[in-house]
Amino acid sequence: MRDSFIVGAGMIPMGRHRESSYPGLAVPAVLDALESAGLRRAEIGAVYCGHAFGGMLTGQRIVKEIGIGGIPVTNVDNACSGGATALHEAHRAVADGHHEVVLVIGVDKLTQFGGGTLPLVTEDWEVQQGMVMPALYAMRARRYLHERDASVEDLASVSVKARRHGVANPYAQFRAEVTVEQVLAARPIADPLTLLQCCPTGDGAAAVLVVSDAVRRRLGGPALRIAASVLHSGQVIGGFRDMLRPEITFESAREAYEQAGVSPRDIDVVELHDAFSIAELVYYEALGLCPVGESTGFLRSGATTYGGEVVVNPSGGLLAKGHPVGASGVAQVVEVFWHLTGTAGTRQVDGARLGLTHVTGGGISGLDHGACTVHIFEHVG
Amino acid sequence: MRDSFIVGAGMIPMGRHRESSYPGLAVPAVLDALESAGLRRAEIGAVYCGHAFGGMLTGQRIVKEIGIGGIPVTNVDNACSGGATALHEAHRAVADGHHEVVLVIGVDKLTQFGGGTLPLVTEDWEVQQGMVMPALYAMRARRYLHERDASVEDLASVSVKARRHGVANPYAQFRAEVTVEQVLAARPIADPLTLLQCCPTGDGAAAVLVVSDAVRRRLGGPALRIAASVLHSGQVIGGFRDMLRPEITFESAREAYEQAGVSPRDIDVVELHDAFSIAELVYYEALGLCPVGESTGFLRSGATTYGGEVVVNPSGGLLAKGHPVGASGVAQVVEVFWHLTGTAGTRQVDGARLGLTHVTGGGISGLDHGACTVHIFEHVG
Repeated sequence: MRDSFIVGAGMIPMGRHRESSYPGLAVPAVLDALESAGLRRAEIGAVYCGHAFGGMLTGQRIVKEIGIGGIPVTNVDNACSGGATALHEAHRAVADGHHEVVLVIGVDKLTQFGGGTLPLVTEDWEVQQGMVMPALYAMRARRYLHERDASVEDLASVSVKARRHGVANPYAQFRAEVTVEQVLAARPIADPLTLLQCCPTGDGAAAVLVVSDAVRRRLGGPALRIAASVLHSGQVIGGFRDMLRPEITFESAREAYEQAGVSPRDIDVVELHDAFSIAELVYYEALGLCPVGESTGFLRSGATTYGGEVVVNPSGGLLAKGHPVGASGVAQVVEVFWHLTGTAGTRQVDGARLGLTHVTGGGISGLDHGACTVHIFEHVG
Repeated sequence: MRDSFIVGAGMIPMGRHRESSYPGLAVPAVLDALESAGLRRAEIGAVYCGHAFGGMLTGQRIVKEIGIGGIPVTNVDNACSGGATALHEAHRAVADGHHEVVLVIGVDKLTQFGGGTLPLVTEDWEVQQGMVMPALYAMRARRYLHERDASVEDLASVSVKARRHGVANPYAQFRAEVTVEQVLAARPIADPLTLLQCCPTGDGAAAVLVVSDAVRRRLGGPALRIAASVLHSGQVIGGFRDMLRPEITFESAREAYEQAGVSPRDIDVVELHDAFSIAELVYYEALGLCPVGESTGFLRSGATTYGGEVVVNPSGGLLAKGHPVGASGVAQVVEVFWHLTGTAGTRQVDGARLGLTHVTGGGISGLDHGACTVHIFEHVG
């Protein structure tokens, strides 16, 4: 495999865009990505589009609107990992020499549904019994409070950090700070999780361009090398042996660090899957950012915000930036692109050179998670 | 790229399986494919699942039921080409050396909807104006009757052939012969197409196993080499310049023959996208099975049935075997696998060595077709 690079990135502000169609959401993100890369539309050799709820041929409908055609377009779904799975496939398509320029789109529009949490996989018997996402993460939170020297205030602190980061992000759905007290006083969703500990319903789109080294050199602009691209689905047996040990993230991260030849300590900026407050704490450990059992102290110490060891979710994460399912995996990469290329504005993580993104989708009966994706990126000038 | 091979194939009878879940449909097909290949479940290194309407993580839900996990599972949608796109990705994953054994699943359950034709892409303005699939193909049929020395009886003859082939196929949704008169007397759907010239609503699943040469040799059983695997989306401009000239199928077929190093005359058995009677005639020409303008005579001559130059849709095609959207692209490959390995029973195409499959999905505003996939397979002992 040869190297592949990200040379352009774009996204639209996450939020409620009820009037927009899927192409309406995605086209501005695609055009921004092209513009930032200095690439022309006609140079795109293939397209991967990650979405969960766009319906048939979502990618084709978007591509049509930007006026290109005659190239392979593939739509992928992997729930929350859909956008990142599209990137994984695009990386392979370039790294294996099939294409020089591949467009990756992540897009979803959740306001097309009634709102609130959705029993998204209605065929699944656990979902039928009420095991929707907030319930699943609430069980993890309960277990965390039981096993660890941690309080509901610690859980709430995750949301406080997310919202504080989101203030500086013009693409975030929520841009107002909240206090621990406000988080804990918010409407209960699934005890101990309150509304402000759950990612919001919203719409969004993001796009990146993956290219070969030859194209990157020709363009001459800033770029990220894709140092690792890993996709795994969950184990059937043992996935929930320990609720605080999401095996699939442990395994994906381990493999990603090995691919990239780096250790967790080398990472400067992380966008991880904080769909609920508890998720961030559990994934600190699974991604190796801190030892197992030490996530509470790690958060309390300020290690994961500006000035700390590694800035986690500078975008505000899913909790503040928003979580339009299929868009999130690509939006994370856009955020990391901006930080590693020094273009993240007032929320810039200074001197960031290595970034990691992590999304994990699903979480269905007997499976740890349906699809986990971890990418590591290195700035290459 | 190294060679990739299909060593196992399975499917369930197409039809109305209202009581089945997606895993309920797909698991028997997967187990049949594994059994026919002589592979164990634990040997599967990755999974690609093509579907249009299964909802999030359809592939993961299926894989869970067969009791495997911890491997990459990717769900792809490309409308009618979804299953074939999954095969395309699986072929790449093996040919590029990422995996030794990849499972490809195609599955869909259309009886979950009300029935009849579905305005499947409701965001599309042409669909909103009534340009659903039967209408689109009816326009092509009208144009065909206008331009060619052809009659409605010729259109009906496509359905007659399809149903006749379907009689011998235990996996076909319809297994009764029909006459030209019956086809023409059937309920009109979109003039000149009658009910018996439209593929039915139904459910189904199919699976194949794609492996490396090393695995194929170890197994020692019959196998197909994937000689060509092509995916294209439509042109924005000019796609409908000529309704009888589906550019994307012309282009995909041309590229597939080039990849395989064969000509249309070398192909022994074809499964093509006869979603409507007119489709088969138009695609004879686009796939190069006969010269442009000569499809009527080609059909009349019997060239495309048993005893002719190339048997087209021995399964009964979408018209008789059925068309559960995401399943069809894989089901075509299963049919070709059986013919090329001499295991197609009473409908066996004698001495078949080279086979071609073709599906084309979508057909949305300004686009010829959303996604066209052409594969060519060679029997390798």
